[in-house]
Amino acid sequence: MKHLTSRDNALFKHLKALTTSTHQLRKAGQALLDGVHLAQAYLDAQGTPLQCVVSERHFDHAEVVPLLRRVPDDRVVVLADALFAQIATVANGIDLMLVIDTPQGKLPARVDTDCIILDGVQDAGNVGSILRSAAAAGIPHAFLATGCALAWSAKTLRAAMGANFHLNIVEHCTPELLLPRLAVPLLATSSHADAELYDVDLRGPVAWVVGNEGAGVGPAWMAAVTRKVGIPQPGGLESLNVGAATAVCLFEAVRQRRG
Amino acid sequence: MKHLTSRDNALFKHLKALTTSTHQLRKAGQALLDGVHLAQAYLDAQGTPLQCVVSERHFDHAEVVPLLRRVPDDRVVVLADALFAQIATVANGIDLMLVIDTPQGKLPARVDTDCIILDGVQDAGNVGSILRSAAAAGIPHAFLATGCALAWSAKTLRAAMGANFHLNIVEHCTPELLLPRLAVPLLATSSHADAELYDVDLRGPVAWVVGNEGAGVGPAWMAAVTRKVGIPQPGGLESLNVGAATAVCLFEAVRQRRG
Repeated sequence: MKHLTSRDNALFKHLKALTTSTHQLRKAGQALLDGVHLAQAYLDAQGTPLQCVVSERHFDHAEVVPLLRRVPDDRVVVLADALFAQIATVANGIDLMLVIDTPQGKLPARVDTDCIILDGVQDAGNVGSILRSAAAAGIPHAFLATGCALAWSAKTLRAAMGANFHLNIVEHCTPELLLPRLAVPLLATSSHADAELYDVDLRGPVAWVVGNEGAGVGPAWMAAVTRKVGIPQPGGLESLNVGAATAVCLFEAVRQRRG
Repeated sequence: MKHLTSRDNALFKHLKALTTSTHQLRKAGQALLDGVHLAQAYLDAQGTPLQCVVSERHFDHAEVVPLLRRVPDDRVVVLADALFAQIATVANGIDLMLVIDTPQGKLPARVDTDCIILDGVQDAGNVGSILRSAAAAGIPHAFLATGCALAWSAKTLRAAMGANFHLNIVEHCTPELLLPRLAVPLLATSSHADAELYDVDLRGPVAWVVGNEGAGVGPAWMAAVTRKVGIPQPGGLESLNVGAATAVCLFEAVRQRRG
């Protein structure tokens, strides 16, 4: 166990850099899991973190103690409270954070199962909510194309509530990389739809591509779409939040596939 | 038309106060609609704002001109660019803002139609997304109980994308006020469910109560729930974002009610 009290310590400086910049996260190939819930989800699904960082004041916390038991002692770092306060990303939370190697998703040679493709979804809360819905619906793959919020930022991780650890997440996908591998129908929601969602057969595996909050799905993906699907909106407002629309589509498939 | 260039002007000071504090918004009984999309949605659905505020640089903007034509000239306020920059809530947007009297929803004597009840939904993005889904699904009433994010803050308005103007929104509802008026079944999602969503008859009007992001629906509402409904989640993660879960429920009703 290490005990850090100086802001000049190299490890503390590294932690601080990771919390202040997504560029640093990308460069280090690491992610920070802030809070007991995310830490538990990671330990349950993935295993041993690089470091488990806890503040002095919460070292004995009832929710922290059982988690510390699951981390090798030489990977536990206890920070002076004032130092932890400088890296905390959640206000009034329990001071526990895991540093992990960002899991590297694998692009399958052939995608013949359900998947979700995110094209330019900018808001980290939306990316997180979509990952969470996908994991809950049993979708194995999430492919993030250019312009998406980072899947492993603090805000996305918080919104995804552990879903990151149950999905094969591949970032920086392009249509050129992914489309030739896609062996399932590619669907997108659209206000110029060929069919209403509830009339589309979703019992077999499909790929859903969901687009940017303002501009929607980009032309390169749209050109490859097998079917444009409309969500009936009897209220007359032709718009749903991208996370809400994705959930409606993914769970219509869940409904159709029930025994 | 007024033209303001001084930061000491009373109207500018008022605008600045409204953008910096939800307390000021509540006190004034006013809301700010930032951007062309929200302004247009308001003009289409509700009518004349108190003021239409535009910057000098965007006074002639192609998307601004047609909106200015719809506002009486004595309600148009042109701000020096440097002043508008101090009140803008959106980065890189078009400098147009409406000041409106916050629409006052009415609590019906008897609620015999669809409605959505929000209990302690803290995140403005979630409140906005839920309002947007409700308006799209044709739900007429949204009742916000204690602890919810303000329905008329800049962040909620932005996430709701104009849905506010298509709903009867009543804030500060309590179980004591609302439950005696409720003449439709009250449903909540729950992991301790009586029935799966897709087995529940949603063809008639229902009230959905949705809860806080962490704690869920509070006990006073839960005690009045007619049916606890589960959303099947084959991925094994027993959790969905509250906005996503609400959309799934509201659009299952849309599906069941199709002709």
